[in-house]
Amino acid sequence: MSIHFADRLAKAVRRSGSRACVGLDPAAERVAAALGRDPAEVLATPEAAAQVIWEFNQRIVEAVRPYCAVAKPQSAFYERWGAPGVEALQRTIVLCREAGLLCILDAKRNDIASTAAAYAQAYLGDGPLACDALTVNAYLGADGVEPFLREARGCGRGIFVLVRTSNPSSVQLQDRALDDGRRVHELMGDLVEEWGGATLGECGYSDVGAVVGATFPAELAALRHRLPHTWFLVPGYGRQGGTAEDVATAFDADGLGAIVNNSSGIIYAHESASGTRDFAEAAGEAARAMRDALEAARKARQ
Amino acid sequence: MSIHFADRLAKAVRRSGSRACVGLDPAAERVAAALGRDPAEVLATPEAAAQVIWEFNQRIVEAVRPYCAVAKPQSAFYERWGAPGVEALQRTIVLCREAGLLCILDAKRNDIASTAAAYAQAYLGDGPLACDALTVNAYLGADGVEPFLREARGCGRGIFVLVRTSNPSSVQLQDRALDDGRRVHELMGDLVEEWGGATLGECGYSDVGAVVGATFPAELAALRHRLPHTWFLVPGYGRQGGTAEDVATAFDADGLGAIVNNSSGIIYAHESASGTRDFAEAAGEAARAMRDALEAARKARQ
Repeated sequence: MSIHFADRLAKAVRRSGSRACVGLDPAAERVAAALGRDPAEVLATPEAAAQVIWEFNQRIVEAVRPYCAVAKPQSAFYERWGAPGVEALQRTIVLCREAGLLCILDAKRNDIASTAAAYAQAYLGDGPLACDALTVNAYLGADGVEPFLREARGCGRGIFVLVRTSNPSSVQLQDRALDDGRRVHELMGDLVEEWGGATLGECGYSDVGAVVGATFPAELAALRHRLPHTWFLVPGYGRQGGTAEDVATAFDADGLGAIVNNSSGIIYAHESASGTRDFAEAAGEAARAMRDALEAARKARQ
Repeated sequence: MSIHFADRLAKAVRRSGSRACVGLDPAAERVAAALGRDPAEVLATPEAAAQVIWEFNQRIVEAVRPYCAVAKPQSAFYERWGAPGVEALQRTIVLCREAGLLCILDAKRNDIASTAAAYAQAYLGDGPLACDALTVNAYLGADGVEPFLREARGCGRGIFVLVRTSNPSSVQLQDRALDDGRRVHELMGDLVEEWGGATLGECGYSDVGAVVGATFPAELAALRHRLPHTWFLVPGYGRQGGTAEDVATAFDADGLGAIVNNSSGIIYAHESASGTRDFAEAAGEAARAMRDALEAARKARQ
């Protein structure tokens, strides 16, 4: 029997009682400050930057693991430091998984043919960067998706395709109307539902998820109805403006169907806290508060 | 006076007399065979795979440098091997630039805000992976482009935005008609021309280029007229089906406006050669033949 990423995600949500995803976006400057290090020293070499990122992530993951189902490292903050940064990413992926968190790498990869297959092998295969799921940008169409699905098939891994992103200028392309009446993001959503059709798990969802931002609540609710077999990864919660009430429509009656990401609002919670608090302690409190807010808003709708 | 990537590219084309770009897409299996190594040994560790990739690239770059203006490493084939692969990529970028080739990293990065800024710093900043230009996927709109332009500004670096890719399923999204009569790739092209408007170099082109495939010659010709200030990076030549005649419309009357990429047709030329030839020798011959074919087709149109 094949294992589905969709079912592993459902299990992680049920086991943790949380729909929260912690975004691991460690900007070396802010991380240095959190750890009380001299920024000039930390930024002087890629090795030093990668080292503080790794130390920071260890403390964060330990603090937030009771309150999250999923962790989502953002590849850019590691790639910025070249090979040492990518090594910190490798270690972070292992760290998350050993902490009992599913690990979605947010890398928005996209390409075709043997190139897409190489990305798939890198992130959904058995190499040093293998994680549980990968974000993918499908501007290239099915050719840019199928190589990932081939690699993921039967090994419990999945992808999340960008459908409606949380940023203001997402309207420039994603909100444009097509001549058949659909908007571009609705077409993309329909393609995601189609691509996922062959990978339905027992939970009723597929291994092809969608990225749908919290900052456009009306579209989020509409897409929930439109894409009944698609897990949503919802960015834009917290500092980007999305609230627990905004995202509550993304869950189904069983409390499945979506996980909600928060990066800065958790890992940099100490920056906005009144008084001086340890960054890891502040992150744990923020993650717990987010989990509770999501649960309250979800139950209020039922 | 600020330096423009557009002008550096024009200079590279004029100096080399070539519109050819060599795609450095080293799949470790094929590279091992080319070097006469035992594939099982090469694939056994990321370090061993990265090492053969680096050896292969050194031989290829040495062989093709007289016949190309630009080199385009494809990031996926390096990322596949984690940190050691990324280190091979770092060395390859330096190798290309020291060989007098402009280096465009084909990584199709895309994100917003501080994440996009981190990618920009990684690839267009002063870090270990800094190159001359980066391919970018603009599904997220201007928010996903401006952080790259901010980093590139005034330091002679640029981006190429995916407009019309060379793969068959690019039609699923890129060829769809909008309600204003434009197709999605035409809207994307118009946005590229708009984003580039503030970065025009002396050559008349901007630092925001477009990726336009050779496999849709009618669209390529139409986009050439539609986007008069936009350098084109043209994939799909050779094994994907595009010919020198297909791409000849991409050049302006001065022979500027486009560079044409060939990956497998150059670096794996030895695989299809009759008789046994050294892979680097075969690559050099293929690059020279491509340069000559492009020049002949370009001059025939004038």
